[in-house]
Amino acid sequence: MAGVQKRIEAALERCLPPADHAPQRLHEAMRYAVLGGGKRVRPLLAFAAGALTEAPLDRLDSVACAVELIHAYSLVHDDMPCMDNDVLRRGKPTVHVEFDQATAMLVGDSLQSLAFEVLASGRLTDDAATQIEMLRTVAVSSGTRGMAGGQAIDLAAVGKSLTLPELEFMHILKTGALIRASVILGARCGHALEPSQFKHLDRYAKCVGLAFQVVDDILDAEAPTATLGKTAGKDAAEGKPTYVSVLGPARARELARELRRDAHAALESLAGAEHLRDLADFIVLREF
Amino acid sequence: MAGVQKRIEAALERCLPPADHAPQRLHEAMRYAVLGGGKRVRPLLAFAAGALTEAPLDRLDSVACAVELIHAYSLVHDDMPCMDNDVLRRGKPTVHVEFDQATAMLVGDSLQSLAFEVLASGRLTDDAATQIEMLRTVAVSSGTRGMAGGQAIDLAAVGKSLTLPELEFMHILKTGALIRASVILGARCGHALEPSQFKHLDRYAKCVGLAFQVVDDILDAEAPTATLGKTAGKDAAEGKPTYVSVLGPARARELARELRRDAHAALESLAGAEHLRDLADFIVLREF
Repeated sequence: MAGVQKRIEAALERCLPPADHAPQRLHEAMRYAVLGGGKRVRPLLAFAAGALTEAPLDRLDSVACAVELIHAYSLVHDDMPCMDNDVLRRGKPTVHVEFDQATAMLVGDSLQSLAFEVLASGRLTDDAATQIEMLRTVAVSSGTRGMAGGQAIDLAAVGKSLTLPELEFMHILKTGALIRASVILGARCGHALEPSQFKHLDRYAKCVGLAFQVVDDILDAEAPTATLGKTAGKDAAEGKPTYVSVLGPARARELARELRRDAHAALESLAGAEHLRDLADFIVLREF
Repeated sequence: MAGVQKRIEAALERCLPPADHAPQRLHEAMRYAVLGGGKRVRPLLAFAAGALTEAPLDRLDSVACAVELIHAYSLVHDDMPCMDNDVLRRGKPTVHVEFDQATAMLVGDSLQSLAFEVLASGRLTDDAATQIEMLRTVAVSSGTRGMAGGQAIDLAAVGKSLTLPELEFMHILKTGALIRASVILGARCGHALEPSQFKHLDRYAKCVGLAFQVVDDILDAEAPTATLGKTAGKDAAEGKPTYVSVLGPARARELARELRRDAHAALESLAGAEHLRDLADFIVLREF
């Protein structure tokens, strides 16, 4: 996994504009936002899914960069004062603190454009029509039926209580959609899967996406800021509904374990799924 | 032109998510930001360029929507307090005033995603590889080598004086790149152009893009707020370098006329360029 993370870091480094090209400050801030931090869960999932279909590594580099750039853009915008107003991210000052708000806004906007540029540069599949479908998947999972829509529901939910299905709907959009896209796009870079195999993979992606958020909520409630690299305990302080607030900590942990079991079960009939299995463990067992 | 504008309005209306779908407030704000206003210069250019290559109208709808969504997203973000801090746009309160800053941020983010979704939905060309190239063109013209990069240079230039080449570089990125993309993508929806024809078209697009900005600067300095639909005189008040501040009003008007002549000249050898010719007039002669 460390090898893949290193490879992803190098690919991100290559696809970001050099800091000495104009506009320098914007490029510098984009590199600050993306490089040298983060677990790279989405890229790891793309690479692990690519192993299922023997996808060429250079194609996986592009997919991994694209989903990580989308994720990084969302962090930069979500951290801004008008959104979650956070000053710490990946153990460093957030972009609007280290640079300024206007730059942070443009960093997010530009990282989103760059993600689509990466997906539209070079060949990701043998069939160009499939590549267009992959671009569409990333666009949908980033927009109002995905990440941005989930963030809107999240902001509207502050100070309210949500039912478990409402909470799930929010997270399926906010983090689930892009995680699912990472898995599906990784697999699409290689040979075609049978429809039944694809269904299992998609089931895995959904379980892992949800598990990721459940664990995030548990860590936010229980881990110290130093471990998280971001301000801990923010959800409760802001009255945000989370899996911990809705289910209680014990049931939330149980749910994370169940989702891990479901993710493993979904992989049972798939050959070459070892990395995906390990990642389900990595996502659920990190720090708890 | 009014017929095309009506067609574009209907296409935008269809491609935006319905306001009664969750997250409702975000969808409502996206529709507020895009519908019922604006000259639709970029969509008009796409349709006019499509006439050169006998492009099917439904393909042009998609291209026109995509470039207008990108443009609309940039207006929403640029108007925010941390950027240009404007309260009036297209004669209405800006999105962050009518809704709130968090919503305005998500509106811009989601409109960008939607633009790429539209470009990746359905067939825009007979050849899927060309469609990928079109997606790439929009991504590049939106990012740091295009619109967002130009905005970064613009913000950094406040209170400074720029040379004419520096000013031109900024505008080629900030407005020129997306205008050029609108023209090129419109043409790409139909039959292929000869390389020499394409070169002429590209020359036209560059002239028109620059002319558009020169006229914008003149209008900002001279037209009243009621005519503009946005706050007039802002550039001077903020110490932003413009064609008027760098060249003086008389030379700026002369430059606009020269660029119109150059745009017309670039079209001379192209059959079916009447609409493009009219649009150069429309862009340069609006209100002055």
